[in-house]
Amino acid sequence: MTNLYRDDSLTLHTDLYQLNMMKSYFDDGIHERKSIFEVFFRNMPFNSGYVVFAGLERIVDYMQNLHFSETDIAYLQEELGFDGPFLEYLRNFKFKGTIRSVREGEFVFKTEPILQVEASLAEAQLIETALLNIVNFQTLIATKAARIRSVIDDEALAEFGTRRAQEMDAAIWGTRAAYIGGCDSTSNVRAGKIFGIPVSGTMAHAMVQAYRDEYQAFKSYAKTHKNAIFLVDTYDTLKSGVPNAIKVAQEMGDAISFIGIRLDSGDMAFLSKKARQMLDEAGFPDAKIFASSDLDEHTIMSLKAQKAKIDSWGVGTKLITAYDQPALGAVYKMASIADENGVLHDSIKLSSNTEKVSTPGNKRVYRIITSDEGLKAEGDYIAMADESMEAVDELTMFHPVHTYITKTVTNFTAKELLIPIFEAGELVYELPSLEDIKAYKEQNLALLWDEYKRTVRPEQYPVDLSVKCWKNKMRNIEMVRKSVQLHSPVDLDFPL
Amino acid sequence: MTNLYRDDSLTLHTDLYQLNMMKSYFDDGIHERKSIFEVFFRNMPFNSGYVVFAGLERIVDYMQNLHFSETDIAYLQEELGFDGPFLEYLRNFKFKGTIRSVREGEFVFKTEPILQVEASLAEAQLIETALLNIVNFQTLIATKAARIRSVIDDEALAEFGTRRAQEMDAAIWGTRAAYIGGCDSTSNVRAGKIFGIPVSGTMAHAMVQAYRDEYQAFKSYAKTHKNAIFLVDTYDTLKSGVPNAIKVAQEMGDAISFIGIRLDSGDMAFLSKKARQMLDEAGFPDAKIFASSDLDEHTIMSLKAQKAKIDSWGVGTKLITAYDQPALGAVYKMASIADENGVLHDSIKLSSNTEKVSTPGNKRVYRIITSDEGLKAEGDYIAMADESMEAVDELTMFHPVHTYITKTVTNFTAKELLIPIFEAGELVYELPSLEDIKAYKEQNLALLWDEYKRTVRPEQYPVDLSVKCWKNKMRNIEMVRKSVQLHSPVDLDFPL
Repeated sequence: MTNLYRDDSLTLHTDLYQLNMMKSYFDDGIHERKSIFEVFFRNMPFNSGYVVFAGLERIVDYMQNLHFSETDIAYLQEELGFDGPFLEYLRNFKFKGTIRSVREGEFVFKTEPILQVEASLAEAQLIETALLNIVNFQTLIATKAARIRSVIDDEALAEFGTRRAQEMDAAIWGTRAAYIGGCDSTSNVRAGKIFGIPVSGTMAHAMVQAYRDEYQAFKSYAKTHKNAIFLVDTYDTLKSGVPNAIKVAQEMGDAISFIGIRLDSGDMAFLSKKARQMLDEAGFPDAKIFASSDLDEHTIMSLKAQKAKIDSWGVGTKLITAYDQPALGAVYKMASIADENGVLHDSIKLSSNTEKVSTPGNKRVYRIITSDEGLKAEGDYIAMADESMEAVDELTMFHPVHTYITKTVTNFTAKELLIPIFEAGELVYELPSLEDIKAYKEQNLALLWDEYKRTVRPEQYPVDLSVKCWKNKMRNIEMVRKSVQLHSPVDLDFPL
Repeated sequence: MTNLYRDDSLTLHTDLYQLNMMKSYFDDGIHERKSIFEVFFRNMPFNSGYVVFAGLERIVDYMQNLHFSETDIAYLQEELGFDGPFLEYLRNFKFKGTIRSVREGEFVFKTEPILQVEASLAEAQLIETALLNIVNFQTLIATKAARIRSVIDDEALAEFGTRRAQEMDAAIWGTRAAYIGGCDSTSNVRAGKIFGIPVSGTMAHAMVQAYRDEYQAFKSYAKTHKNAIFLVDTYDTLKSGVPNAIKVAQEMGDAISFIGIRLDSGDMAFLSKKARQMLDEAGFPDAKIFASSDLDEHTIMSLKAQKAKIDSWGVGTKLITAYDQPALGAVYKMASIADENGVLHDSIKLSSNTEKVSTPGNKRVYRIITSDEGLKAEGDYIAMADESMEAVDELTMFHPVHTYITKTVTNFTAKELLIPIFEAGELVYELPSLEDIKAYKEQNLALLWDEYKRTVRPEQYPVDLSVKCWKNKMRNIEMVRKSVQLHSPVDLDFPL
């Protein structure tokens, strides 16, 4: 390697501008001012009706190891020209703030805060890049996996995209996210070792080629592995692969457990029906047919519409890269900033696109759950942190842009979504097991009405602002518009 | 963390089926048989006329650390049920094979081998997954960066996609690949530390929000950083951002170097022209205008067509995720396999899609370079390893599928593209510096005729098989077809 520094820490896994801003804050003596930043995304990926949050475990790991190593400091000094007391500040840097987040496996929706950092300005700035890097990818993959799961009921779903993943972390953390979202197993052995995810896999075309004879290859595999799935498309699926698989299964009899065959190319609908017939006629009605080959929720739905006889699915490229939308686009925006006396003030970022305007102030997010027809989520409700939900027994929710759309909910519980992870820099959250996270995702799915779960053209789940929160946002917009001297009339006569 | 094993090695960063096949080979005593595998891709990503290879440095690092740790062995035994002498074999595993590869920064094309592994069957199988994981991603990003570079001449190009990258490795290795492909700098400080890539970045909207006053924020930045680029779109680009930037630049005078302003939202064409005018009128004709906001080669070309006044470009999401095609799809196929006597035999993988049929046998790849009009690459030529190019002074190249398309080349040099990296397990290649790789890419670009460099609808660069190689492929197809009893006529009367 041609590295300048061989050791590595993730603390410099940040954009230079964060450090440049920290330096300005430090030199101006405002770096310790309290600030609140929020992570949210503006559009539903894949036009999905829901998004599955993932990434918290990696964030906890990152936060717990956050400190500038000696070589980090040396690099900043020698190569980037940072100097003076600021370097001393970095050398002693320790995160002392609060992080609230939704749980992994939680369903989240556009515009609502999914993670909140309440920390000194310098601390909050430093961690933005890594937090977004983690949340953006893992949440995207968990969501994609959930979508694929949603079209195959309880059929087996294996993730095996490592070779097409965007480098190694994407394979490892991506397969963990895919497991949360709905996969049953991964092909990546390292992910199995690190996370305890079930690992699956049998043979590649290379094995058939290595034996220079498909029958011999299957036979050898059967002799050395009790559970046998034969890959049948190396030469010709129906004329060679399936007959050889059946022949070996018949010869080996009870000596093996003949699980089935895997189709990896060609017309899956046609081949699976023919192969099913051949397996049935040969006396293997329980043998499964596995399919793989650039599959995603759309191809799977289409194969099912054609009554393909596939029992089990392997997904790679399209899942692990979130092929049809490879970035979630979550952002990290300042919601509040303290003044010299420590008093928090709202902070807002404007945009010419009204839906891109951030929602200022310290907020909480509640999921409004009713129990009339089983537990169902009626929508999410964003309120100011000082609004209590306890005495509220009737809630009028309204659309944050089209305010004439309203609905009134009674007999509900309000579940707070953002829970404390770090407080005063200390981890206060017990990380659940991966199995618990996976179960939590399933439990959440049951809360959603079917109209939000449709893969194509779902209804939009309501995410509403409290009246106070909405009015506060409008007031902030007005203030900023005034201060930039737009000279355009501002309508103070809000419809609420 | 809920890890089973806290330590980590990349040796298990492989698909389970590789280990399952290794087990079969081992139990059958064929694991030491020599094999040749090749990496190639079947389609040009982004419909690009060329692809820029990257990933070799990471592969070298991976190969040099390839061994099963005690906990790797423990995991395989305790959780995955591997046992017996095979585990002993893994414990003593050491790669002893040969790897040939094209250089980083080399231009490569679909269907040609870009990396070759000549090793024992078991060794070659184990490393497939990681090699593809590395090559697929880094090559994709280097190519995307080269495409963006190709539309901006020598204007500055900064990569700052970390927050949207698919997890951390993608950010780090992706920005290195982007640097090879044509970026001038990265925002990722860690990548700067590890690779020595120039790091760039100034301020975010959060800084303007932190000071609760755009003018104050700019002023503070200018006081603490000599080189000032002001981000002007937090509230209103033309009514607030640009005027405040000009005001601060005027007040600070020679105390700072006023580099320019950055536009991050809105209509870049309109805003840049207006901002240019304002800067010029204020006496800052040398101030640069930086643009960012979901840019890629297509948007940049369109902005340029509209005569946008942009001097410098920042690219994030679209580059670091290769948004319009997030996977390269390179595969790893067996080309040769030894029999029990160590004699190599060709190996082929068929497919119902003729272009997906692999090319069997031990091969070499030559770039045919003529010097009539400056050094120009006329095409790539794939020959069998035992074909000497030395005495050849006239070469008839023909299209591998449409064989009637031919051209004859004389007065050429044949540059061998696959060079030895590892021999008998030892590194025999001196890794070039990143700057040398970047320069090598530029040098290669000059070899290409313009017709292959066009961003949209380029001509297809010729990659041809030698007559011997082509005949050998046809013979292999015929043999396999016969052996699977297709009962369809095989035309032995080849057109050559």
